[in-house]
Amino acid sequence: MAKIPVGVLGATGMVGQQYITLLDNHPWFDVKYVAASPRSAGKKYSEAVAGRWQLAKDYAANVGKITVEDANDVKCAIAAHKRKKCAFVFSALEMGKDETSALEEAYAAAGIPVISNASAHRWTPDVPVLIAEINPHHTDIIPFQRKAHGWDKGFIAVKPNCSIQSYMTPLHALVQAGYLIKKIIVTTMQAVSGAGYPGVPSLDIIDNIIPYIGVGEEEKSEKEPLKIFGSIINGVIQNAIMPKISATCNRVPVVDGHTACLSIAFGLKKPSVDEIKKVWQSFKGLPQEAKLPTAPQQPIIYREEENRPQPRKDRDADKAMAVVIGRLRPCNVLDVRFTALSHNTVRGAAGGGILNAELLKYKGYLG
Amino acid sequence: MAKIPVGVLGATGMVGQQYITLLDNHPWFDVKYVAASPRSAGKKYSEAVAGRWQLAKDYAANVGKITVEDANDVKCAIAAHKRKKCAFVFSALEMGKDETSALEEAYAAAGIPVISNASAHRWTPDVPVLIAEINPHHTDIIPFQRKAHGWDKGFIAVKPNCSIQSYMTPLHALVQAGYLIKKIIVTTMQAVSGAGYPGVPSLDIIDNIIPYIGVGEEEKSEKEPLKIFGSIINGVIQNAIMPKISATCNRVPVVDGHTACLSIAFGLKKPSVDEIKKVWQSFKGLPQEAKLPTAPQQPIIYREEENRPQPRKDRDADKAMAVVIGRLRPCNVLDVRFTALSHNTVRGAAGGGILNAELLKYKGYLG
Amino acid sequence: MAKIPVGVLGATGMVGQQYITLLDNHPWFDVKYVAASPRSAGKKYSEAVAGRWQLAKDYAANVGKITVEDANDVKCAIAAHKRKKCAFVFSALEMGKDETSALEEAYAAAGIPVISNASAHRWTPDVPVLIAEINPHHTDIIPFQRKAHGWDKGFIAVKPNCSIQSYMTPLHALVQAGYLIKKIIVTTMQAVSGAGYPGVPSLDIIDNIIPYIGVGEEEKSEKEPLKIFGSIINGVIQNAIMPKISATCNRVPVVDGHTACLSIAFGLKKPSVDEIKKVWQSFKGLPQEAKLPTAPQQPIIYREEENRPQPRKDRDADKAMAVVIGRLRPCNVLDVRFTALSHNTVRGAAGGGILNAELLKYKGYLG
Amino acid sequence: MAKIPVGVLGATGMVGQQYITLLDNHPWFDVKYVAASPRSAGKKYSEAVAGRWQLAKDYAANVGKITVEDANDVKCAIAAHKRKKCAFVFSALEMGKDETSALEEAYAAAGIPVISNASAHRWTPDVPVLIAEINPHHTDIIPFQRKAHGWDKGFIAVKPNCSIQSYMTPLHALVQAGYLIKKIIVTTMQAVSGAGYPGVPSLDIIDNIIPYIGVGEEEKSEKEPLKIFGSIINGVIQNAIMPKISATCNRVPVVDGHTACLSIAFGLKKPSVDEIKKVWQSFKGLPQEAKLPTAPQQPIIYREEENRPQPRKDRDADKAMAVVIGRLRPCNVLDVRFTALSHNTVRGAAGGGILNAELLKYKGYLG
Repeated sequence: MAKIPVGVLGATGMVGQQYITLLDNHPWFDVKYVAASPRSAGKKYSEAVAGRWQLAKDYAANVGKITVEDANDVKCAIAAHKRKKCAFVFSALEMGKDETSALEEAYAAAGIPVISNASAHRWTPDVPVLIAEINPHHTDIIPFQRKAHGWDKGFIAVKPNCSIQSYMTPLHALVQAGYLIKKIIVTTMQAVSGAGYPGVPSLDIIDNIIPYIGVGEEEKSEKEPLKIFGSIINGVIQNAIMPKISATCNRVPVVDGHTACLSIAFGLKKPSVDEIKKVWQSFKGLPQEAKLPTAPQQPIIYREEENRPQPRKDRDADKAMAVVIGRLRPCNVLDVRFTALSHNTVRGAAGGGILNAELLKYKGYLG
Repeated sequence: MAKIPVGVLGATGMVGQQYITLLDNHPWFDVKYVAASPRSAGKKYSEAVAGRWQLAKDYAANVGKITVEDANDVKCAIAAHKRKKCAFVFSALEMGKDETSALEEAYAAAGIPVISNASAHRWTPDVPVLIAEINPHHTDIIPFQRKAHGWDKGFIAVKPNCSIQSYMTPLHALVQAGYLIKKIIVTTMQAVSGAGYPGVPSLDIIDNIIPYIGVGEEEKSEKEPLKIFGSIINGVIQNAIMPKISATCNRVPVVDGHTACLSIAFGLKKPSVDEIKKVWQSFKGLPQEAKLPTAPQQPIIYREEENRPQPRKDRDADKAMAVVIGRLRPCNVLDVRFTALSHNTVRGAAGGGILNAELLKYKGYLG
Repeated sequence: MAKIPVGVLGATGMVGQQYITLLDNHPWFDVKYVAASPRSAGKKYSEAVAGRWQLAKDYAANVGKITVEDANDVKCAIAAHKRKKCAFVFSALEMGKDETSALEEAYAAAGIPVISNASAHRWTPDVPVLIAEINPHHTDIIPFQRKAHGWDKGFIAVKPNCSIQSYMTPLHALVQAGYLIKKIIVTTMQAVSGAGYPGVPSLDIIDNIIPYIGVGEEEKSEKEPLKIFGSIINGVIQNAIMPKISATCNRVPVVDGHTACLSIAFGLKKPSVDEIKKVWQSFKGLPQEAKLPTAPQQPIIYREEENRPQPRKDRDADKAMAVVIGRLRPCNVLDVRFTALSHNTVRGAAGGGILNAELLKYKGYLG
Repeated sequence: MAKIPVGVLGATGMVGQQYITLLDNHPWFDVKYVAASPRSAGKKYSEAVAGRWQLAKDYAANVGKITVEDANDVKCAIAAHKRKKCAFVFSALEMGKDETSALEEAYAAAGIPVISNASAHRWTPDVPVLIAEINPHHTDIIPFQRKAHGWDKGFIAVKPNCSIQSYMTPLHALVQAGYLIKKIIVTTMQAVSGAGYPGVPSLDIIDNIIPYIGVGEEEKSEKEPLKIFGSIINGVIQNAIMPKISATCNRVPVVDGHTACLSIAFGLKKPSVDEIKKVWQSFKGLPQEAKLPTAPQQPIIYREEENRPQPRKDRDADKAMAVVIGRLRPCNVLDVRFTALSHNTVRGAAGGGILNAELLKYKGYLG
């Protein structure tokens, strides 16, 4: 099977770099088109990222040679699309909400599907916010989305905020097993890579913690789960009405890996600690059943050691695509509490976006 | 007024070093006696801490010249007591619970009051766990304690665990203002100095978080507040029966300053965010009213900036003796949430111990 | 004696904040005028630094109320000068070289002396680069400078780069004691605060070192000492012709405090390790003799412990104005080697600037 | 070809853990025997490292099931040797010099070759200190060593200290190309993993640098190169007489990766910067020519970016087995200067030991 040529928008930023790295030797996709801000346009990718490359692994030599295009120039992408150089795009755009929103729609209107990490369209009712293990059925909204816009082949699908990645799959597994979740109090300790580059100034974070993450990190963490847990009704995604979530988001001096400490309250049916562990250890989602190439073998890893999960030791579990859980125990106020971790720029960003693309390909939405 | 000569047990450890530093030029107390493990005994204090001194400020030259005694050798302390070199001792002992417990009792039995940071006696029903702004009336247990043991002048008074220091005073201020607190969910991010020296290995904490603190940090954080909020009944301290507390304690790469994120639920009478701020800003305790030398002028400092409190910027507020609060806002699950911070080795350890000694002196228990 | 009203240019940046903090309660100077970029102009100082304040100590309440002026607006400063609100200015401007150069000259031309931290005028031959303990006699260039420009009261005096602060005084003490220094190989490990705010991105420095500091840090470190060691000849400062210096500058994950490891070669007269220590311990400069208020009592502190100096423990020595040295021992290639440390934003920036102003006041150049 | 069964002594320590991890799926060697201190003996390996596992990658499940033996019990190893479970051992022992020395000899005397990371035998004249790219011919000392001790199959071969790993191969490449090196001044910035576990206390290194590494790190760095560059004469390794080396070793808050800044002086024949780069880029050693499984493809990687090498980005280059160099430029005092980096626990410890074993197998010394 010939690989599908793909593009990356915002390819020089932090998440863009992760896309380039993770797509190296991907079995289905091949990066043939890279676009970024006008400042980078016209340069070779290698020149555009010189002195700004953030990752330990270098980019592939062939991507280094590609000339960066202006991400605002949709015509250029259309031409590449026709030349079979850009079947669809991953969007890691870092502009303002309105610009991103309009630009992603322009690509979709031009027949180029957009798999996005940006937050611009997360609250558009006919755009699915996908976590491949949780709501793969939300792809069913795409025909409605296309119809509403008069789009033929193009569409937009997005990822949620990286802050919720570590605990959404474990919560979903419990709900799926029949245990309703009514309330969540969560405190996160988030890595600096979540703020992009240059992102968090070192003067703010060495020997320090910032007890707040702008813009709207806590609100996103409280609302996005409700859409992911929602249902398609009348051509739009209707949000779930529970759980009630209270999120406090902190920035900590960790490079990669968001950690979250949760207390949760169940409905009337309350699982024991052992039942919860059993649910998590046996959970498989569609990516596992369909053996999608980027899917972790075991999406939820529970560690019994009392001092795990730890960002530096657990973020890379199963190609940095698994979530790692530990410290499950009763809560004195709600029902149970535990600590969850995921790699924010892989599972929580580019890796999650690639898995979404694999899901969409598997479902036939990428031709 | 001549200064009172005092001793420090465990003077070479992390908290012991803080005692030595904070007592330098103290208006009431003068360090004349230092004791530590047999390994240090017989050396000058300067030799005993050579290569192990942890603080930016050096110890006073005159303390450096004092010969370290063996903390296990109570007779030696008794002799010093008679020579007017050791009216009472600060205990920063780092031995096991049983040894510490027995040793502190031996000092007390010898007529030497013990103001302790150790956890050994925190659950002894007739030993007060003092936070000078909250429960200064718990010193009233001392006559009962003395009577029960047949002690004349000696007694034991202790401090709570440093993990709860940042939020106990703010909670007390609310209770005192008539707002009952029923439930607390708290997640802490604790500095490495809390584990003493050598304490946390650097390999465990650079670019990392440890989601657990042994031994029993969470249990201490859940139980000690109940004793502090308790009442003296029949010669013992009867624990309060609420709030219910659920604590999750994390170790983070911060040198000094424990941060805590809390969600709390009130009883029927619920203050608004503005009422809470007003209570905190106007709160004064006995240390403020009595103008005890180490007391912070304003024990609770509320900061309106959304990105405060931060350990590096706020831990030293008011000689590192104030607690600093921020981010007060409604909670979607309980009633309100906020973030609190205090300096764990000053307010949460040696500084708090010194303030307790000042309180006890003020109340007449130190002669 | 009434205090002299002073202004701070660039008052909202990292070094500007240090000036504001260090000038709080200064016995001679009183901040009455603050200026920064047009973005901050018109705001209260408290508003201009909200969310950007970097220091543990807060600014003085009265400075918080001052309205920030536009630093480019020299007329505004002239008006303040006439109103006795700005006798001279400290310049912590962070613009490009040419703009800074022109702007500082405009203030001087207007009769307002400029004590600068900026690098713009360091290579202007009639501008002194002052370290108060080393070359206080270089203030003698000021009459030549005034004459050359036709300035009456104004002048410009600058500080060297913070990277060389830790070892210049120790080297000078040796030269003054008769030991010529011919060669220096120095490797620095510099704190992130040296790059200002936002400065070094946290993604670049957590669990990492950057083996290079732009722009031109190594060149500055190699050349500026020659001007400081130079002589006034024919109305200009003639650079010294030695030592030859080879500098390698690294950025390390430390908040404050630049550390330098040096190997040096003497001329024919070579002191022993003991002689060097004696020279350092007994060294006093003009600031010490004149008892200038910001001068450290002992400008060079030698520590015998083999694991000192350390940034966190030694940067604050003597109000962060002393340099701390350790590890003096023979070098297998040149003559001796040692490690030196100073606080880069205090002694190496604002504190050094204030000491320069005190020197200039003492010498009669500030009226 | 059946794999060779191997043992690891000190298997539970930091370097031992790296051995276990790096030998997982090794094409030639198979871990069948693990030994550690008496405290761990008798436990499953998984139990012995529970809560102490330092690496992001977990150990192989089959090694987790092996029962740990007492490393002091040579008889136990002999029995395993006879059962074909331990053809030779990797020694990552962490005892004192004399104990390690005697124990390694006991294994060798029993016919079990010892490939060691310990420093105990580095100065034994008939024990080779191997860097496989530099002095593979030093294996020729083994017959002399065996003869001197009356050993038949056993022998001892060791690795140098990790601090010199990053620059020895680049220096050797230049010497081999005909450029004599006479003097070296080197300042290192070493990662905390170099001190093992628990190793460096976090209180010593967060927001700090330790300007000294005990015990004898600088002396090792100055002397070991002379043995590696030495010649076999009369059955012993005769040290080279140059270069003269002056080393200053610092500990920095980096997890893995030792960085070194060097200035070097050549003999009469001095290469240009371009010639040096050419030598480095084209250098291949015996491991590359023999295609040893753990050998890096390109042992010396030169990076042109002015801000490289960096520990976090470059330590893992070529399976963490390459050394990465940058910033080559003329030195104002000696001839040239540059910055070098290698992964201290892989290339500088366990990975280097495995490469040595591959070399010894290739040369026929491991049967």
